[in-house]
Amino acid sequence: MLSSDDKQKYMQLAIAQAKEAEKQGEVPIGAVIVDPDGKVIGTGYNRRELDEDATQHAEMIAIKEACKNLGMWRLIDCSLFVTLEPCPMCAGAIINSRIKDVYFGALDPKAGACGSVVDLFTVEKFNHHPHAIRGLYRDQCAQMLKDFFRAIRQKQKEENN
Amino acid sequence: MLSSDDKQKYMQLAIAQAKEAEKQGEVPIGAVIVDPDGKVIGTGYNRRELDEDATQHAEMIAIKEACKNLGMWRLIDCSLFVTLEPCPMCAGAIINSRIKDVYFGALDPKAGACGSVVDLFTVEKFNHHPHAIRGLYRDQCAQMLKDFFRAIRQKQKEENN
Repeated sequence: MLSSDDKQKYMQLAIAQAKEAEKQGEVPIGAVIVDPDGKVIGTGYNRRELDEDATQHAEMIAIKEACKNLGMWRLIDCSLFVTLEPCPMCAGAIINSRIKDVYFGALDPKAGACGSVVDLFTVEKFNHHPHAIRGLYRDQCAQMLKDFFRAIRQKQKEENN
Repeated sequence: MLSSDDKQKYMQLAIAQAKEAEKQGEVPIGAVIVDPDGKVIGTGYNRRELDEDATQHAEMIAIKEACKNLGMWRLIDCSLFVTLEPCPMCAGAIINSRIKDVYFGALDPKAGACGSVVDLFTVEKFNHHPHAIRGLYRDQCAQMLKDFFRAIRQKQKEENN
């Protein structure tokens, strides 16, 4: 069982991943996967533009790394921490990899697949139902995204003047 | 515009990919992506067990290859042909990569995300809505899966005797 302190620590690691994305000009989204003993087995940050690959979201990169580290595609009893609510692709990958708990920070009203637009984790027919825990460091995660998009708009404004 | 003959040809290529999966002991599912001129820019077959990676579905591999070949994450006006109805992860990746048309063979009553269990392509709030075309070579695609699972059950039965 992860303690409350553990959970905060892992979300801070996910935020550090997001900041790494931001440094490289990407939308700041980061993810971390830990095994049941609390060992970090996967990390990732959004690299869609860097890699020119629509599948290179933070969660996907972290899941691939975790599977590689464990040598198996089932991430039984593992937890994923991500700064933004997963999109349908990532929520689907979380179901497919049998991750148990998903902690996310900011909500995504445009593409969130854990309650905001659709809720894939509660679809009865699917063969696995991850547990979603919303709102850990929500304000910090949301602010990071707001600041990023504000800076982009500011830059575009300056370029147009 | 792809002709009816073209579409049959591309689904047969996806079926050939599925047979390649089967040869390697994987559930036979295959995918092909073509650009608006009908050039094949991505192919993939299910490699979940081979790679011990929950994200290694046929469609994901084909999308990653297509992005790499085009040097961009947007697969505008491209078509995907896949032997089985995409799962939520793959349907989400199709939305994320802006693929236009998705032709699939067999329906997936357990995990299909293009109408069978959920229908992600028609969720209004998402920023892209691929067009799903069901049933091209449905019987052949479904039979391939049935034969695969029947052979597995037969083998297990023999081993238990």
